[in-house]
Amino acid sequence: MTLKSFIDVHPDSHFSLQNLPYGVFKPGKEQKARIGVAIGEYVLDLSAIAGAGLFNEPLLKDSECFFQNSLNMFLALGRPAWKEARATIQRLLSADEPTLRDNASLRERSLFSMDQVELLLPAAIGDYTDFFSSMHHAKNCGTIFRGPENPIPVNWFHLPIAYHGRASSILLSGTDIIRPRGQSFPVGNSPPYFGPSLKLDFELEMAAIVGPGNELGKPVDIDKAEDLIFGLVLMNDWSARDIQAWEYQPLGPFLGKSFGTTISPWIVTLEALEPFACDAPKQEPHPLPYLTEKKSKNYDIALEVQIKPTGHKEGSVVTKSNFKYLYWTLPQQLVHHTSNGCNLRPGDLLGTGTISGPDRESLGCLLELTWNGQKPLSLQNGAVRKFLEDEDEVIISGCCQGNGYKVGFGTCTGRILPALL
Amino acid sequence: MTLKSFIDVHPDSHFSLQNLPYGVFKPGKEQKARIGVAIGEYVLDLSAIAGAGLFNEPLLKDSECFFQNSLNMFLALGRPAWKEARATIQRLLSADEPTLRDNASLRERSLFSMDQVELLLPAAIGDYTDFFSSMHHAKNCGTIFRGPENPIPVNWFHLPIAYHGRASSILLSGTDIIRPRGQSFPVGNSPPYFGPSLKLDFELEMAAIVGPGNELGKPVDIDKAEDLIFGLVLMNDWSARDIQAWEYQPLGPFLGKSFGTTISPWIVTLEALEPFACDAPKQEPHPLPYLTEKKSKNYDIALEVQIKPTGHKEGSVVTKSNFKYLYWTLPQQLVHHTSNGCNLRPGDLLGTGTISGPDRESLGCLLELTWNGQKPLSLQNGAVRKFLEDEDEVIISGCCQGNGYKVGFGTCTGRILPALL
Ligand SMILES: [Ca+2]
Ligand SMILES: [Ca+2]
Ligand SMILES: [Mg+2]
Ligand SMILES: [Mg+2]
Ligand code: NI
Repeated sequence: MTLKSFIDVHPDSHFSLQNLPYGVFKPGKEQKARIGVAIGEYVLDLSAIAGAGLFNEPLLKDSECFFQNSLNMFLALGRPAWKEARATIQRLLSADEPTLRDNASLRERSLFSMDQVELLLPAAIGDYTDFFSSMHHAKNCGTIFRGPENPIPVNWFHLPIAYHGRASSILLSGTDIIRPRGQSFPVGNSPPYFGPSLKLDFELEMAAIVGPGNELGKPVDIDKAEDLIFGLVLMNDWSARDIQAWEYQPLGPFLGKSFGTTISPWIVTLEALEPFACDAPKQEPHPLPYLTEKKSKNYDIALEVQIKPTGHKEGSVVTKSNFKYLYWTLPQQLVHHTSNGCNLRPGDLLGTGTISGPDRESLGCLLELTWNGQKPLSLQNGAVRKFLEDEDEVIISGCCQGNGYKVGFGTCTGRILPALL
Repeated sequence: MTLKSFIDVHPDSHFSLQNLPYGVFKPGKEQKARIGVAIGEYVLDLSAIAGAGLFNEPLLKDSECFFQNSLNMFLALGRPAWKEARATIQRLLSADEPTLRDNASLRERSLFSMDQVELLLPAAIGDYTDFFSSMHHAKNCGTIFRGPENPIPVNWFHLPIAYHGRASSILLSGTDIIRPRGQSFPVGNSPPYFGPSLKLDFELEMAAIVGPGNELGKPVDIDKAEDLIFGLVLMNDWSARDIQAWEYQPLGPFLGKSFGTTISPWIVTLEALEPFACDAPKQEPHPLPYLTEKKSKNYDIALEVQIKPTGHKEGSVVTKSNFKYLYWTLPQQLVHHTSNGCNLRPGDLLGTGTISGPDRESLGCLLELTWNGQKPLSLQNGAVRKFLEDEDEVIISGCCQGNGYKVGFGTCTGRILPALL
């Protein structure tokens, strides 16, 4: 039986009644930010639903969580409250439930056309961590930078490698990216120079939004890790490869990444993704006990990146990848992160790292797709790219295909503006 | 002429009328957090001073900044407001000004004995960055990890290397540190194991607190950088060397650092430090134009670290260093950080990196002091240390010596608790 809403949802819409992703929006410029869920081409205002007393189950009935301007308070409540909210919203939006369907005044107050609202970052992100969980990406980067012998560092198969990213420059989909300037080392023994990056790249990633988090000094058990993850967004970890290559030894990426990281506005919950769970790749060597899962799972989320140069009517698809290619799972990433006692807070963002698949057509960044600029990529209309050019728009999309419906993420976009003079 | 307060300030006190460092405190457990400045053995409550209408100069007279529970709003106001506040507070506390001196009721409401109050983190820290600005530290670490040929990476002399740190685990002085557990690689080809760190270390650092910050996409000019820095604190960047050594390639330090970073409670302003400014070391090769300062300066801040094992009445001094040994200056660090357009926000923390001096007695961490455990260090009472042991307390202090007064930071302390079972 397919769930059906009284709101008309096209079968190709990412925002089916089975999805119900969470975001933050303003109905109009002068109005307050509030929490909503996407349904078809509409946004349901949860502050209006809560204000009408329709969250009347035990965990949420006295909660202030839907009267906030970010999801953080709701994230902190944890899975039982998330399930209760999902059940309530799914019921209220279903075709055979009259409460909202037949109340014109409440519909008017709570349903907004998505193309009329302003979307905002869904959560206040205290810390942002980026993992490195695709084996194909690790192997390709290692081969490009260090050669084909032992391209993957020896520690990589033992732990989910990660670095701390910059939280201040996390941006909502649609925000323009100014080409960064920085130092890089041209050739041989010439001195470094400072100027606009010549190797600006995207990275196709997804990112987990942390729910309740953990106390400092209290590592999370692998069997409980999934309950600390609220959901996922699409992420573009913009990267300046020339700046990165020159700066990253010995302390890792810094200015090569910190000029901007874009996420999609709608957080798709793990509940909505559960029907698309699939086995994660076999891990060999077997991980240490603290990282060993009873059952290791990924999600079958089809991912696609388009580049749309200025003047082109349509973007050119440059890669098709899938979340299921990740080697380290979300619970393993989270458990490793807390294994030293490090505390996660509600709203923290855990990027997966670039998601590259096994084929030439499933690589997650231009560094890999053009082999560091050596094999330029052909787009439509005769355009060719080694790295991103000014005015290029990068459009990431992600979607799970259900039986007659989709559970999708919408898009995560950004356009490159020229560097400062 | 020496400034004198009507409050008795011992000449050895770090908190003279020339200092006036800012912090956040609660007078009692049940009371609201508020902003204060330290004066001798007292804390002056700036919400009481503001409430009495005594910030009556143009920039602060209508401001809400002293009615907050963190310094962030005051930090955002910038140097002219900071100077105005300093002048007002210095005048109100001076011996020949009757306003506060002769008002018993206001004194009662605004002055609290420092040993009666609870100190809190002075600012909400959005992002924490740790630099690597001591050449002696870079050289020693490089020699220990990579050998004596070219110990300093080739990029080090061209840019102030840094990495993003973990903001969630920044702790106030006095907070206990649980020995972290993690993966490390024992010897040869044996597999990694998971357990308590065997190489727990401190790092003697200082950190800048960012004032107004900059917009995303707007790099800061080197001539204007100093005006974006409010002041400095002491910092202990606790480090698990075994975890760090195994994880840090290729993305830098992560769990080896993120279990805790301790800062001192009082932010000493650049105004208070100005009398102790001194020339920074000559930089060769000459930095690129965007990093070239008209005048490169450091501050003469004497730094000391003691280790106090459990049962010892007194700590043993293990190093004496100085802020003036830093190669890259604070403005250079800040300008480099924003050179790609990265935005800094009020309250961001910029650690200097471990401050090691040129001598055996001025090294800023046990990794260097014991040469990675090869040359154990003798403490008082026959105690010996390769790395930190459980129950050890580490006490960092820092102070500038004026003519008959001190401008000091107090201490930054933390005690090691045993690892979880
Ligand atoms: Ca990445
Ligand atoms: Ca450090
Ligand atoms: Mg980024
Ligand atoms: Mg630390
Ligand atoms: Ni951060």
